[in-house]
Amino acid sequence: MKVGILGGGQLARMIALAGYPLGLEFIVLDPSEIAGATALSEHLCGQYDDQQLLAELADKADVVTYEFENVPADVAKFLAEHTRVYPAPNALAVAQDRLHEKNFFHQLHIPTADYASVSSLDDLQQAMEHLGYPAILKSRRMGYDGKGQVVLKSSDQLVEAWDSMQGVASIVEGFVPFQREVSIIAARRPSGEVVFYPLSENTHDKGILRVAECCVDDPLQQKAEAYVIRLLEALDYVGIIALELFEIDGKLLANEFAPRVHNSGHWTIEGAETSQFENHLRAILDLPLGSTNARGHTGMVNFIGNLPPSESTLSISNAHLHLYDKSARKGRKVAHATVRADSVEDYSQSLQELVRLAKAIDDS
Amino acid sequence: MKVGILGGGQLARMIALAGYPLGLEFIVLDPSEIAGATALSEHLCGQYDDQQLLAELADKADVVTYEFENVPADVAKFLAEHTRVYPAPNALAVAQDRLHEKNFFHQLHIPTADYASVSSLDDLQQAMEHLGYPAILKSRRMGYDGKGQVVLKSSDQLVEAWDSMQGVASIVEGFVPFQREVSIIAARRPSGEVVFYPLSENTHDKGILRVAECCVDDPLQQKAEAYVIRLLEALDYVGIIALELFEIDGKLLANEFAPRVHNSGHWTIEGAETSQFENHLRAILDLPLGSTNARGHTGMVNFIGNLPPSESTLSISNAHLHLYDKSARKGRKVAHATVRADSVEDYSQSLQELVRLAKAIDDS
Repeated sequence: MKVGILGGGQLARMIALAGYPLGLEFIVLDPSEIAGATALSEHLCGQYDDQQLLAELADKADVVTYEFENVPADVAKFLAEHTRVYPAPNALAVAQDRLHEKNFFHQLHIPTADYASVSSLDDLQQAMEHLGYPAILKSRRMGYDGKGQVVLKSSDQLVEAWDSMQGVASIVEGFVPFQREVSIIAARRPSGEVVFYPLSENTHDKGILRVAECCVDDPLQQKAEAYVIRLLEALDYVGIIALELFEIDGKLLANEFAPRVHNSGHWTIEGAETSQFENHLRAILDLPLGSTNARGHTGMVNFIGNLPPSESTLSISNAHLHLYDKSARKGRKVAHATVRADSVEDYSQSLQELVRLAKAIDDS
Repeated sequence: MKVGILGGGQLARMIALAGYPLGLEFIVLDPSEIAGATALSEHLCGQYDDQQLLAELADKADVVTYEFENVPADVAKFLAEHTRVYPAPNALAVAQDRLHEKNFFHQLHIPTADYASVSSLDDLQQAMEHLGYPAILKSRRMGYDGKGQVVLKSSDQLVEAWDSMQGVASIVEGFVPFQREVSIIAARRPSGEVVFYPLSENTHDKGILRVAECCVDDPLQQKAEAYVIRLLEALDYVGIIALELFEIDGKLLANEFAPRVHNSGHWTIEGAETSQFENHLRAILDLPLGSTNARGHTGMVNFIGNLPPSESTLSISNAHLHLYDKSARKGRKVAHATVRADSVEDYSQSLQELVRLAKAIDDS
């Protein structure tokens, strides 16, 4: 059985590492000659919209999945006409457009921050009369080139902010003074069987995930599960999904979802009975899903931009290193490390050491 | 950093899977075109004594290791002259010759069954006057063609038994009416740092390992550690070693050791904080060794000759599947599965289901 993956970076790499024990083979399409998964798979080197390579991928793979959500709609459609594609293109379509995504949450009665569609300065000015400051203006779509986001602190900024969007369809969202950012990761197979991982509590800095910690017996677990299962069922979803949420005064507000394995679930490799990568494969191959139970206390730290010497990470008690075979570059996730321990004390101490290590090399 | 492996079967496969997260690359030398590790490594396809391929292996690899102990002495010597080879050839030399191995145990005051060197019928007859029946006559060396072993039940058999050895240097060993077979797996790095895994209790049938279970807090753990560390230090050993022992009335008798990762340690992938495969790599690369602590209760079952459908294994609670990408063949290890659980009850139930599954497909 051969699994095709659009994208050959670290997520594809970890999917492949989880898949070999299941007897799977891999083929990735990625424009980079030295993407992290290419040593572990057949590599089609080219652009994501290269029709010839897409046809080869569809021909060689029994099922195709992807490691990023910005797959062009016509690419997803082409693949789906020629082979099985999981998650199906409808999930991509929703996830690619922040307005569609928020509207979709709204339809499913999944609470979000207040938001409004913005197609003109007039739209923005009207919306801000209701939303209040601060707020965030974002392009609805984020292509590979990554359109910016603008934080709005007062009405003086509106003209300049709208100008900076260069007329692209946008959304403005009320700022949520949240206490925690959490995510719930779940898997669903074609039969409808669903499993949920324990919540992950996520710490971002400068827009990049730094630390994700498994929350054992979190009081908001059930609420998060109730929200994500609505998404899974409404999309007839197959594979791993990650739903990012803000906690504010005991309530959860949906921020966005990712139709793929997710950085906030990397701790599941050591910290859950079955990793998100293996359960993604089990789901898209319609195999029984594995237990998502936590194994003790676990947290993950990203290494951004640079790498500490492996000796430093591996000398931390119960630390596990995951290098992505990527060269150092400012702001780039080049590796992560996980700590797992049976006691919360051992866990906390090792996590602190890991965080110190990550901060010392951080150049972002 | 590139690791060379002599042999590209399932042990090399699992070493490579453990090595990618550490940022390693692999090159294997194996005569089979479709060995289990070749999808995960550069593959030199040829005989183990092919000088040109050995030179290429030594040239490309920063360190060379192996997945079987019957590496020809001149091959190990050639490699050691051109690159780092761990474990060093002296460990191979001892492990390849059952008489040297038993004498070595004896020198280190590691108890064994009674034994005697046999080079003639006369030797055999004299030895059996002291050893008593039953006993086992074995060739000292086991080449790739696997010379047989003969169980001696009475003196009537001696002439025929010696004839069957075709004159090869042999050893006769007293039969041990053991209560348990256990093994201890340990790792040592060049600095001398040593870690020990919890004992594994092993069940064989028809000479093939069927089940290996992690023994948490075994009363014989310390004794086994005291024996294996003598081996490690006497050999100035680097890497993973496995020492097989018989338990008889609370004592341990050494049977043999393997200078490599070992089938009885496959449960460490899920059941220990750091797997034997990762610790082998950490050891030969002189990196800090990882914790060997058990994660709950764990056992492994081999699939021999055939494979059950993956669905059957994956539907067992907390089961983990490890396929070797090998075609079905009578008596061949084609996969293993592990169960891990926090409670002994959950563990026992899942292990029983796994054992039933393995027996149902067993054709050996």
